[in-house]
Amino acid sequence: MTTNPEMNLGMTERLKPIHEKVATMVRDEIIPLDEEFLSEVGKNGDRWTHTARQLEILDGLKAKARERGLWNFWLTDSRRGYGLSTVEYAYLAEEMGKAHLGAETFNCSAPDTGNMEVFERYGTEAQKQQWLAPLLEGQIRSAFLMTEPDVASSDATNISMRCERDGDHYVLNGEKWWSSGAGDPRCKIYITMVKTPDASRGRHEQHSMILVPADTPGITKLRAMEIYGQDDAPHGHLHMKFDDVRVPVENMIVGEGKGFEIAQGRLGPGRIHHCMRAVGQAERALELMCTRALRREAFGKPLAQLGANYDIIAECRMEIEMARLLCLKAAWMMDQGDKKAAAPWISQIKVVAPRMALKVTDEAIQMYGAQGISQDTSLARAWTNLRTLRFADGPDAVHRRQVAREELKKYTQQKI
Amino acid sequence: MTTNPEMNLGMTERLKPIHEKVATMVRDEIIPLDEEFLSEVGKNGDRWTHTARQLEILDGLKAKARERGLWNFWLTDSRRGYGLSTVEYAYLAEEMGKAHLGAETFNCSAPDTGNMEVFERYGTEAQKQQWLAPLLEGQIRSAFLMTEPDVASSDATNISMRCERDGDHYVLNGEKWWSSGAGDPRCKIYITMVKTPDASRGRHEQHSMILVPADTPGITKLRAMEIYGQDDAPHGHLHMKFDDVRVPVENMIVGEGKGFEIAQGRLGPGRIHHCMRAVGQAERALELMCTRALRREAFGKPLAQLGANYDIIAECRMEIEMARLLCLKAAWMMDQGDKKAAAPWISQIKVVAPRMALKVTDEAIQMYGAQGISQDTSLARAWTNLRTLRFADGPDAVHRRQVAREELKKYTQQKI
Amino acid sequence: MTTNPEMNLGMTERLKPIHEKVATMVRDEIIPLDEEFLSEVGKNGDRWTHTARQLEILDGLKAKARERGLWNFWLTDSRRGYGLSTVEYAYLAEEMGKAHLGAETFNCSAPDTGNMEVFERYGTEAQKQQWLAPLLEGQIRSAFLMTEPDVASSDATNISMRCERDGDHYVLNGEKWWSSGAGDPRCKIYITMVKTPDASRGRHEQHSMILVPADTPGITKLRAMEIYGQDDAPHGHLHMKFDDVRVPVENMIVGEGKGFEIAQGRLGPGRIHHCMRAVGQAERALELMCTRALRREAFGKPLAQLGANYDIIAECRMEIEMARLLCLKAAWMMDQGDKKAAAPWISQIKVVAPRMALKVTDEAIQMYGAQGISQDTSLARAWTNLRTLRFADGPDAVHRRQVAREELKKYTQQKI
Amino acid sequence: MTTNPEMNLGMTERLKPIHEKVATMVRDEIIPLDEEFLSEVGKNGDRWTHTARQLEILDGLKAKARERGLWNFWLTDSRRGYGLSTVEYAYLAEEMGKAHLGAETFNCSAPDTGNMEVFERYGTEAQKQQWLAPLLEGQIRSAFLMTEPDVASSDATNISMRCERDGDHYVLNGEKWWSSGAGDPRCKIYITMVKTPDASRGRHEQHSMILVPADTPGITKLRAMEIYGQDDAPHGHLHMKFDDVRVPVENMIVGEGKGFEIAQGRLGPGRIHHCMRAVGQAERALELMCTRALRREAFGKPLAQLGANYDIIAECRMEIEMARLLCLKAAWMMDQGDKKAAAPWISQIKVVAPRMALKVTDEAIQMYGAQGISQDTSLARAWTNLRTLRFADGPDAVHRRQVAREELKKYTQQKI
Repeated sequence: MTTNPEMNLGMTERLKPIHEKVATMVRDEIIPLDEEFLSEVGKNGDRWTHTARQLEILDGLKAKARERGLWNFWLTDSRRGYGLSTVEYAYLAEEMGKAHLGAETFNCSAPDTGNMEVFERYGTEAQKQQWLAPLLEGQIRSAFLMTEPDVASSDATNISMRCERDGDHYVLNGEKWWSSGAGDPRCKIYITMVKTPDASRGRHEQHSMILVPADTPGITKLRAMEIYGQDDAPHGHLHMKFDDVRVPVENMIVGEGKGFEIAQGRLGPGRIHHCMRAVGQAERALELMCTRALRREAFGKPLAQLGANYDIIAECRMEIEMARLLCLKAAWMMDQGDKKAAAPWISQIKVVAPRMALKVTDEAIQMYGAQGISQDTSLARAWTNLRTLRFADGPDAVHRRQVAREELKKYTQQKI
Repeated sequence: MTTNPEMNLGMTERLKPIHEKVATMVRDEIIPLDEEFLSEVGKNGDRWTHTARQLEILDGLKAKARERGLWNFWLTDSRRGYGLSTVEYAYLAEEMGKAHLGAETFNCSAPDTGNMEVFERYGTEAQKQQWLAPLLEGQIRSAFLMTEPDVASSDATNISMRCERDGDHYVLNGEKWWSSGAGDPRCKIYITMVKTPDASRGRHEQHSMILVPADTPGITKLRAMEIYGQDDAPHGHLHMKFDDVRVPVENMIVGEGKGFEIAQGRLGPGRIHHCMRAVGQAERALELMCTRALRREAFGKPLAQLGANYDIIAECRMEIEMARLLCLKAAWMMDQGDKKAAAPWISQIKVVAPRMALKVTDEAIQMYGAQGISQDTSLARAWTNLRTLRFADGPDAVHRRQVAREELKKYTQQKI
Repeated sequence: MTTNPEMNLGMTERLKPIHEKVATMVRDEIIPLDEEFLSEVGKNGDRWTHTARQLEILDGLKAKARERGLWNFWLTDSRRGYGLSTVEYAYLAEEMGKAHLGAETFNCSAPDTGNMEVFERYGTEAQKQQWLAPLLEGQIRSAFLMTEPDVASSDATNISMRCERDGDHYVLNGEKWWSSGAGDPRCKIYITMVKTPDASRGRHEQHSMILVPADTPGITKLRAMEIYGQDDAPHGHLHMKFDDVRVPVENMIVGEGKGFEIAQGRLGPGRIHHCMRAVGQAERALELMCTRALRREAFGKPLAQLGANYDIIAECRMEIEMARLLCLKAAWMMDQGDKKAAAPWISQIKVVAPRMALKVTDEAIQMYGAQGISQDTSLARAWTNLRTLRFADGPDAVHRRQVAREELKKYTQQKI
Repeated sequence: MTTNPEMNLGMTERLKPIHEKVATMVRDEIIPLDEEFLSEVGKNGDRWTHTARQLEILDGLKAKARERGLWNFWLTDSRRGYGLSTVEYAYLAEEMGKAHLGAETFNCSAPDTGNMEVFERYGTEAQKQQWLAPLLEGQIRSAFLMTEPDVASSDATNISMRCERDGDHYVLNGEKWWSSGAGDPRCKIYITMVKTPDASRGRHEQHSMILVPADTPGITKLRAMEIYGQDDAPHGHLHMKFDDVRVPVENMIVGEGKGFEIAQGRLGPGRIHHCMRAVGQAERALELMCTRALRREAFGKPLAQLGANYDIIAECRMEIEMARLLCLKAAWMMDQGDKKAAAPWISQIKVVAPRMALKVTDEAIQMYGAQGISQDTSLARAWTNLRTLRFADGPDAVHRRQVAREELKKYTQQKI
């Protein structure tokens, strides 16, 4: 683990040229293709497969990125990758957040990065061979099946998908929803949180993570969950049913009861990666807001000079800077290697970054007038995506509660 | 005009039984059909026509409403209707706002009510015969073509669709967008704002309103504008192109240069109707929030008892009450018959009501977790609809400016 | 009780001339003397007595008001006064709120109005003779001793001043603080909340209200509580100690255990009166803000035209209107005579009005620059006075909780 | 100038022991004396001199600090002091901000630090000898006379005190107000901004800074400006009149027309020092809020567990962290030596830090109930002090405008 007693939150010298390349590629090569990629959805008569042009765009970008060595940056502190610190990764993730295809181009997209970390840290050699290798190559994609309908996601001990041992197999029954990416035909493997009750273990050892190949019999894709009416096809956020889905016992990750332990390791980076990208989305929204404010005229003046627009722009700038610094500080805490110490910082930024990015994006939308909510800018889509982050990996209220308890603990020995 | 020196903002005795019937029908008959109606879109292979089931639902509801005499309430101060005051109408519109099909069921939906008012006040007998009569019957629908791409809608003097006299006809050329309802196959007539320049007249007399039947040659439906990715089919918010669209000179409403005069008469009621329904949407969102807070449990308690939820519920209640009262006051000002005096009150509620309803709906969404942004509740759709109101009929900034100028005028003779 | 099925929130015809007189007197005769009155404090070497000039100002204003019949308006629904409704009183109280000496001039100031209501409703003939009569004449003043140090005022069952029977007397021991008005040499009588434990009665019947003449031996004025550093002399908010303070048993109001019953009757009107005056303070702050924005120039323009000032002014206007309407609605609810139904409305306005008035006043202060926080405007003093209202008669949190519980009760039979 | 390509915003190794000593002294030795010091004001019959006990406290603390080498930290990048970076100083200033006597104990208080910087950078040897030397020793104090009544402080080119050459002297006439510290009998020298018109120079070269000894004839102390009713005696914020005040020509700093140049150098550090201390005040307020929330009970529970208090505490923690990081980033920008580049960062934190600290302090006050606004905690005084920072050295609106213009400049060549 990179330790960094000097709290350097700036770009390191080694990062600068990489950052420059990533930023340039996002701006000049990826953003210009985003709209075309999105407009292709369903043109082949099936929203749940990619069109030929979509694959051409995607594979083309990925090939270029790999060729340039801009690949798998998320492998922080690993001999497989650049060995970037989380702080360094934050600067890259921010750039990726600016484009719809940003993260995937560099093989840094959710939920794959989190899933790959699970394989990297907890997988057997065979599992790594079968699943991690093609994921690292960007040949397949993966999903993470956690949330269930009718279960309060804010308290994950409620997760209830049954997983029963039957000889050399586990048999899974139940429903999962919001399985992001499970709609993508390239998605081949599901890391699945299940309940494996054992009275001899504690409350946080009743769950397990198990590998379920996407083509296992018994899996029904019930429907795509919509986000403000959008299905995000072909990626999708699926509602799925498991009826007697059988997987070999070797598919259990680490062992029964380790679900929460693995989840915690997975969720920390996942949460902060979302936040880093949210900062990037906010930066892009502010840029769009400013260019609009300068170019559009009403009542004989550019919008920038009307009403409270100077103040709105200034407030957005200040909120972005503060959220970015908090995100970098949380990243730096993670780099110090003490997960318990880093946790409240991740909770803080998890509340702050989406809220800030939503606000900046909403102000940008307002500056565009009706065009802002339409398909003619990227802002409306950005907003709905950002809105999901106030639930994803824990709703705001749960994270605020964590922050408050940490604060109060300083002044009392009692349980808070 | 109903004058009402006593500022009675409560329900009148005559209104109570009508209100009861409308509220009951919305709750028991309309809301239960909303989701089915919406889920039908496109099931016949064409998003831009209604399915048979959709027509069955819609016509069934409208027939029931008419049969019960619950029809055309918006005809305030008119011998054609109940002669309700605007204050009385507000209580009914609030109930209608709670259901997707609420307003249309009672023939009170936008943009028809505004358009019908134009016919009622400014139309010739022939125009009333041809268009107002079937609109009042709910047999056809209409659109209002105002906004144009590349024109700052906040300053309507920029509207530039050309309209040139050619013998007994006018010839129209240009583009319109956000033509709400123009996608509906039942939409037969467009009231269209055009530019008819005349150097001898003032800045607000350069525009006219003219009737364009939907089937006039030369009209191309370029595309449907999307609202956060949704096309609202088959209603739709269309982007349309007019190439040499010819209409007889009799189609000019009142006369050349009267566009703004007519628009002002039309927009006042239109704006406040939106606000009344927004209050209803907020009430429904709060109801959904409370029932969720009581039924859903996490950490062994109903959500209501967790975190800041009591405070959130209380704040929503207070904001709804204040916005409703302001809406009623603005309605009462309109009932006094002095448009100039009522205008700043309409501006006030136009800023306040959508913002309040957006906030309440967003809090309700947060209480539902990921379900809140999905198709499983009405909340996400309500939110996107409400968001349009911060632009529709003038963006917030323009209305705030009006309110401020009115305030400052009290203390200065100078132009503000 | 005035019932008013038509929810008339406007000024009645009978009120208009009275309102006109009160508004004019506040503006032309009272406000111009406020600053001189306040600047006199302590000029005679004793902050806790009035100077001769102060008495001249005060008695002069009161004499004029009485002469004009502008007196004791708070006696709503009473044959002793005008018999105004609470809604009507609201319009007058708002005007009084605009001046420091406004309420006292018309014998409508706290805590006297609340105390007089206690005498009026619960007093014996002898008590009325001795205390109510001179209070109604404005000859003496009174205090209400409730809050105690080290007791959470949000939960009034904690009040603990001992009050023990000893023959024909009660003997009181303990401390009270924030006894507003007890510093005034004209303050002759304290209505005092005490604990009279009785195991046979319920939790809300353990307290009593008893009359303690200000000159009773055993009372020590420990100190004046300060509000942001100001002692509000000679009115004062005193911290007092009672050592064996003996009063005759006849001084018990109604009887032992009736403390909360009386307090509830007293607090409802008291709370809403504060809110009515807060609306008036906000109106005055907005007026000051606007005149400053028009007269002061920077960068070659009046402040009104700089930055977000239009928006700030508009938001203040909208917030005032909404709070006023909510206040009037709460007043109307009180006029309907069902205290239980009115209670959540009073809680709502108790949260809303001070918060709104604080915000408007703070924005006005900001418009004045450093002058705004100084003695050169009335704004800084207004702000500190308003800030106390977020605690007085129950902190915001308690009122919000009441509102939320009322809301949730609609959807559950269970205790919330 | 310390350059620091690695943006280390953490505490350096050399700083840690110093920080520990400062923090400990503030907590254990200074805070415990604050209230006594403040309660002494006026006890000797004159609010405008220190009591013997006040001098004993103050001189005692200063002597201890000096003895421990904890002195003049503000001399960043100077051979006279520790040579701390601005980032390092921020950590110390934050601690000092927690106590009323914090900054003065370590000879780091406003306006002396800014004034000493003026002497250090622009003074002649004689001026340094006469004024800087005793200031560095903490033997005298100084004031900075800038703002004038009836002049919009947001646009400093309006400053109008006349300063006319008369042989070997300049003669000053006019008024100054908000001269902070000029009430202190130890205050011996005023750095005074005056107008020295010269048509041959630009708009920002019409003003000069000149030294005026406090005992120069012709100076009248008109009155003390009050902050929410408090005069801050004996420090004071004076309103003064200059009638033919004569000072030798050598007292002109640098030369005529250099006023703004010097002011800019002075104001940058001054502004950020206020912000650093504001962060410290917020930290102390949050600590007070938490301890109160844990110790005070209502309805059978500690306040911490009631209502929205967890959320309030969490939000305060998050806002503090973000503001601190932004303050550190602004400090780091200053350390890079490019004033133009640092300016918008200082504007950002100047808006953010006071607003954040006001909010946190206000929430803490609310947690204390009425005690929070009284003299029994340090919170009310902290709040009024913080409120001045929204005007001091430029009102929020001016700083927001700077930030917005900087942002818009990225996208246009035109003047914004």
